[in-house]
Amino acid sequence: MVEIAVMGYGVVGTGVIEVLAKHSDGLTRRAHEQMHVKYVLVRRDFPEPPLMGTFTKSFEQIVNDAEVKIVVEVMGGLHPAYDYVRRCLLAGKSVVTSNKELVAAKGADLLQIAKDHNVNFLFEASVGGGIPIIRPMSQCLAANVVIGVAGILNGTTNYILTKMFRNGADFKDALAEAQRLGYAERDPTADIEGLDACRKICILASLAYGKHVYPEQVHTEGITKITKADVEYAEKWGGVVKLIGEVKRVESGKVQIIVCPMLVDRESQLSNVDDVFNGIMVRGDITGDVVFYGKGAGKMPTASAVVADVIDCVKHLKARKYLYWSDGSPDYVEDYREAVRAFYIRAHAVNCDNAFEKAAELFPGASRLTRKNAPAGEFAFTTGKMPEKECDRKLQQLVSSSVTVDGRIRIGEM
Amino acid sequence: MVEIAVMGYGVVGTGVIEVLAKHSDGLTRRAHEQMHVKYVLVRRDFPEPPLMGTFTKSFEQIVNDAEVKIVVEVMGGLHPAYDYVRRCLLAGKSVVTSNKELVAAKGADLLQIAKDHNVNFLFEASVGGGIPIIRPMSQCLAANVVIGVAGILNGTTNYILTKMFRNGADFKDALAEAQRLGYAERDPTADIEGLDACRKICILASLAYGKHVYPEQVHTEGITKITKADVEYAEKWGGVVKLIGEVKRVESGKVQIIVCPMLVDRESQLSNVDDVFNGIMVRGDITGDVVFYGKGAGKMPTASAVVADVIDCVKHLKARKYLYWSDGSPDYVEDYREAVRAFYIRAHAVNCDNAFEKAAELFPGASRLTRKNAPAGEFAFTTGKMPEKECDRKLQQLVSSSVTVDGRIRIGEM
Repeated sequence: MVEIAVMGYGVVGTGVIEVLAKHSDGLTRRAHEQMHVKYVLVRRDFPEPPLMGTFTKSFEQIVNDAEVKIVVEVMGGLHPAYDYVRRCLLAGKSVVTSNKELVAAKGADLLQIAKDHNVNFLFEASVGGGIPIIRPMSQCLAANVVIGVAGILNGTTNYILTKMFRNGADFKDALAEAQRLGYAERDPTADIEGLDACRKICILASLAYGKHVYPEQVHTEGITKITKADVEYAEKWGGVVKLIGEVKRVESGKVQIIVCPMLVDRESQLSNVDDVFNGIMVRGDITGDVVFYGKGAGKMPTASAVVADVIDCVKHLKARKYLYWSDGSPDYVEDYREAVRAFYIRAHAVNCDNAFEKAAELFPGASRLTRKNAPAGEFAFTTGKMPEKECDRKLQQLVSSSVTVDGRIRIGEM
Repeated sequence: MVEIAVMGYGVVGTGVIEVLAKHSDGLTRRAHEQMHVKYVLVRRDFPEPPLMGTFTKSFEQIVNDAEVKIVVEVMGGLHPAYDYVRRCLLAGKSVVTSNKELVAAKGADLLQIAKDHNVNFLFEASVGGGIPIIRPMSQCLAANVVIGVAGILNGTTNYILTKMFRNGADFKDALAEAQRLGYAERDPTADIEGLDACRKICILASLAYGKHVYPEQVHTEGITKITKADVEYAEKWGGVVKLIGEVKRVESGKVQIIVCPMLVDRESQLSNVDDVFNGIMVRGDITGDVVFYGKGAGKMPTASAVVADVIDCVKHLKARKYLYWSDGSPDYVEDYREAVRAFYIRAHAVNCDNAFEKAAELFPGASRLTRKNAPAGEFAFTTGKMPEKECDRKLQQLVSSSVTVDGRIRIGEM
């Protein structure tokens, strides 16, 4: 019998206890050992006891109980989660978490403590909900050098963008519908501004290259500026707009990492990842592109990923799973304006034909896009590839010749 | 230092040695131990020595060398691979294989021996080449009950079908091109008759439900009867034709399993798996649909999956990885004619309108499909859902009223 403590009794926490209580027989068969929830750490009183275990408001009770071998942290947020997880690891307990904020901010630190104390710190549920991605990346691709990772990592924004494409909804209406359906929170900032996706790509980047990338090092743009016009031009171009988190290693040994909306070609596997689904593409030097697809969030998928990690901890109470990356450094991330890409640009001018001619002089390989019922003066085009800072410079030149630039979207290569 | 023997020096074998020799530093870092190939088992002489290790023609030398802890079997075929792998496991060596024929025919037996001797028998490369699927299925989905698995498991046939859809090629021309490009073998039977896909779905089924399904228990149809006409009707219907391997558990506790061409709706993630790529959808009761996508074959992707398993063996020389299923039984697989599905049917008659009317009486929910330039008398339709044996009976009735049935394709639900 292995004793477990669950810290947090929100959506994921109740799901974890539900899975552990209801699937007990099957889980025992797989773990070769019975698992029992001893404590559930809560901050307030609940009318009913949990399905398994007893409530406690005392973290000290958990950390000081030598019987508790595995602690599940599903409180979310950095504080007090970081302090609690740290102390559990220091006390020789393995920890499983779904807390992406924690792993993205403190992963290297916690992995080091886990290593020093010969316990496990697992977080499969922190990226992609129920989609297995952390474990396949660290294990199955062990014989590959990761060229890059690109993914649709946030279901809320993907739902909104899918609505804009399918139904021609504008951003506000699509967001309102996502909120009505419970896909977006009342304060949707973390999703629509790209912060959630940023934490996830930080975790994947750290894992892929063995060195921590912190969220504040990543240039992050959300989807709030995407308009119906962009949607129509993207369709004409032959693709869709997706919020992409992307990382690759560059020759200097640094990483290029960004979170932003991108135009994704219809031929790409990621262009077909719609609604609240997530899709993650891992490009290996040997395997080529491998894509993982599924529901990236939700109570039960996330809970099932947490429980799978718990089972893994039970099986590895003595032999540590090897999952590790080292501390990051301020100069490890390349300036995002160095990245070489093609761009889509939407603008307007009094005479849009003249303005496009001017643009075509500035941007080699410029190719004009059209859409039905475009307002007078509007024009849009895609550019050839160039460093982003060069594109910025040219856009300034364009603006100085009486053109107003209304939107720019990077063109993805995945 | 861990000593390894590689049995077989064909495409995959040379790839494995290449990866081990060229990526040595990175692999050592990941495995926490240096790996060295001591022997390469070959049947004939080669002009050059291998990149690592020495050639031997003696299996006895390998099995009797106590220094060899891990044996890689990449010979293919059942004999002598089965005998060799068995004896290595009995001798306390862990075995890694890419041999799907072996795992599909003898998996339960070999897993039992591995268990009894506390060693590992791993075979990630046997399904999906470089796509991680065995490990994610057995570990990450540990907290799920698998409702079903459906996949495009053979790259050769998928390439052929993609050509037929994209270029309007007929089967023979598409096959010839696949052979010219090296995607299909000179004797393409195992691929185009579905045998290769059958072995893979047997492995996935055995893993998903813990009980061996043998290839001879699986109704298997290849793609040789798919025509240009079917391709055109499928497009009109709103989908594509894919060779699908599918398994699900039915209420009786038996499994429903089949390999055959299916109509796949454009909305399905599997419809976008084109060319030589593979896609595998695992439907969990909690996670919902999770899809794994990538190159399902090829020297280096397969070799990289083998090497990842080798690394896992090195890390688990003492703690066994838990991968296991029990022997199968003759009554474990349900008669495939019991499965309830919708069907697509193509036929001809002197008066096709009358014939379709007759068909519509027989098949509730019949919906006619049309295509440009259909020859006189041809008609096609989709049916409502019914057990396959009922469809067979109705088709006989249709035939008895002077209709010739030219093709029938099951409609997938994935």
